[in-house]
Amino acid sequence: MIPRLQIIEIAREVYSRYGFSPIDTPALEYSEILLGKGGEESDKQLFRFVDQGERDVAMRFDLTVPFARFAAQHIGILGTPFKRYHIAPVWRGERPARGRFREFIQCDFDTIGTESLAADIETLLVVHDLLEKLEVGEFTIRINHRQVLNGLLEQLGLLQHSSAVLRALDKLPKIGEAAVTEEMNATAGISAEQATRVIAFANIEGTRSEVLAQAQEMVSGSESGRVACEALTEIISTCDRIGIAESRLQIDLSIARGLDYYTGLIFETFLADLPDMGSISSGGRYDNLAGLYTKQKLSGVGGSLGLDRLLAALQELGRCKEVQTTSQVLIARFVEDRLADYQRLSRQLHAQGIASEVYPEGKNLGKQLKYADRKKIPLAVIAGEDEFQQGTWQIKNLQRGEQLVVAEAEVVGVIQSELNKLSTSTT
Amino acid sequence: MIPRLQIIEIAREVYSRYGFSPIDTPALEYSEILLGKGGEESDKQLFRFVDQGERDVAMRFDLTVPFARFAAQHIGILGTPFKRYHIAPVWRGERPARGRFREFIQCDFDTIGTESLAADIETLLVVHDLLEKLEVGEFTIRINHRQVLNGLLEQLGLLQHSSAVLRALDKLPKIGEAAVTEEMNATAGISAEQATRVIAFANIEGTRSEVLAQAQEMVSGSESGRVACEALTEIISTCDRIGIAESRLQIDLSIARGLDYYTGLIFETFLADLPDMGSISSGGRYDNLAGLYTKQKLSGVGGSLGLDRLLAALQELGRCKEVQTTSQVLIARFVEDRLADYQRLSRQLHAQGIASEVYPEGKNLGKQLKYADRKKIPLAVIAGEDEFQQGTWQIKNLQRGEQLVVAEAEVVGVIQSELNKLSTSTT
Repeated sequence: MIPRLQIIEIAREVYSRYGFSPIDTPALEYSEILLGKGGEESDKQLFRFVDQGERDVAMRFDLTVPFARFAAQHIGILGTPFKRYHIAPVWRGERPARGRFREFIQCDFDTIGTESLAADIETLLVVHDLLEKLEVGEFTIRINHRQVLNGLLEQLGLLQHSSAVLRALDKLPKIGEAAVTEEMNATAGISAEQATRVIAFANIEGTRSEVLAQAQEMVSGSESGRVACEALTEIISTCDRIGIAESRLQIDLSIARGLDYYTGLIFETFLADLPDMGSISSGGRYDNLAGLYTKQKLSGVGGSLGLDRLLAALQELGRCKEVQTTSQVLIARFVEDRLADYQRLSRQLHAQGIASEVYPEGKNLGKQLKYADRKKIPLAVIAGEDEFQQGTWQIKNLQRGEQLVVAEAEVVGVIQSELNKLSTSTT
Repeated sequence: MIPRLQIIEIAREVYSRYGFSPIDTPALEYSEILLGKGGEESDKQLFRFVDQGERDVAMRFDLTVPFARFAAQHIGILGTPFKRYHIAPVWRGERPARGRFREFIQCDFDTIGTESLAADIETLLVVHDLLEKLEVGEFTIRINHRQVLNGLLEQLGLLQHSSAVLRALDKLPKIGEAAVTEEMNATAGISAEQATRVIAFANIEGTRSEVLAQAQEMVSGSESGRVACEALTEIISTCDRIGIAESRLQIDLSIARGLDYYTGLIFETFLADLPDMGSISSGGRYDNLAGLYTKQKLSGVGGSLGLDRLLAALQELGRCKEVQTTSQVLIARFVEDRLADYQRLSRQLHAQGIASEVYPEGKNLGKQLKYADRKKIPLAVIAGEDEFQQGTWQIKNLQRGEQLVVAEAEVVGVIQSELNKLSTSTT
């Protein structure tokens, strides 16, 4: 939980810095709000029941559908553009697997009510800054555009099968070309030759301008495909001018995203040190998310951080310390009657922002130090009647086995500098 | 959500400082874990259903019962004493009312695995420091002890009706003496005379030592009552020596707490400016919380912050600013092509910890400033081609209607000092 909360804290900080406001919606929605929004699979996975008031309700399976409902209800008061983030658990009644749970936390941010490409660019900047702040090592945001893919499909005469084709294409890195070809054939009757052309397009490699140039050529017969290529060009050139490193923003024509509602920019993000981990932050632009709930057109763009995947990545990279407590100092209750003195010192440390605790039971120093050891608390402070007579405290560095005796007036300062030394030596 | 998150942030900070570790448990538990733990009322309010795997599950109605289940399962690895906090939503299928919702957030902290009074004292210190940090004005933690109340009931020959009597007594401030007397009679057959004696005991007033002395005298025939009076005396005297103001820690023999599981210290906390608001932080000691799930005796002590009530209190006290965003600076997109320059400035501000955003659409300055106004963003930064030629930025203070033109090299510093001025002038 401690590293999890640290990640959430960083996400909140980055989202807030860009002016996204936190919102929360209830865990339960009317079932009719959720049904049919995520496809058949998602409907089957709903935790759904009839409540005490005979209402047919279900637990949300993502944060996007409740946001669409919320936006449709409140956009008149909120005004546009509206930028929100939402970090909260969602539930899916599926079989748990490694890194996949029935309850998991989503960290979404979205800008709705503007079609400006500036919002798409800002979305990529948020993901960029978030990953930079999370210190996950090098990363690449891979972008594509739904209308570039649709432009190709239009020229191949496959536009009416777009959603089946793109859903299959989305699985390319996981299941490989043969299986994707097969799925395209099975779900949309696409011939092997056509599938090969789609996959060849997705596999175009080269520098950003080379990929863009080839894509432009191949979709040149499609008006919306041409416009989409221009949008990608503008996103890239603006991010260049902002100062985003080329290695961190690439064009990848194989990015398709599984969800139907994307209509413009789509992106996924990969770690250089763990390329097989899959995307840890994805998103894109959608044209009319709240169309089911309101007549006002609410297009938007947003992204999501995969918290559990990121945690797994940090663990694999050894960048996730196993900590059981935030305590930095254990004050032993060496003389039972001196509890007030021990608590007074502890509260002096708190006032300096140092987490510390007094051991509750007043016997057996060995047991008290073992507690500190188990919780990996680095410093212990001990004072018996002798020390109280002399006005001193003993500070024990439990990592190095060293011991200091300091005067009462200096104890907070010395603890602070001992802790500073420790944090420097571990980085 | 913004003030709500600020309160949660402060609670996390205070809990962590005292060495409480964050934990999380799933929203759904097996129904058998939850049923019968909160009484009949609570069973009826459970959101309960059968899931895809034919499991009978329900949404948690509090954080204590899941914690007991968690502790029973994991205490062998965690070791004792174990200090945890948990801030998360809970659900109850009841009729919503002012300040009462079907979903609400609980902020609990507990120390289990020690019977030491030091943990009771620490619990009170946590509540004290939390309220101090929340800046809610003056407050009083009112403490009592279940065994003091039981000592009285023992002497009145009413010990076997303890839970019915205390449940009725708990309602004294809400429903008054006559109704409490009536309820005691209805639920436990207590005579009006006996009820009067219980209520008279609860109403004892005076200084802390006067109240304690009277209580001591009245329960003197009960061994556990005498021990409990000594515990209260020690809590008070230790807190005195720690430096807790007398006005903030009082003895109140009418504090009974509705829940059956308390066995020792019990407390509630009231705001001096809003005495009728009810308790905003309550808790106490329980002897064997996890007794239903493990043979190991896990006594503990803990408290809970009433987040929704506290928010309502802050609103009523006018200490809760209505904010729609954390943004402090809106950078107008005055020249459409200059998006990269605007974003570069915005990111320079972010690097200094200043939340800022670029308006996504590139026209109509009036509309852009209206956006800032609606979101109460205090500063706008504007630059047209003239400014870019001269290397300057215009800073507009939207609250005072003032305008500054500053050189590019100084813009971040000037924005910082303008924001500092604003935050000083509003405090």
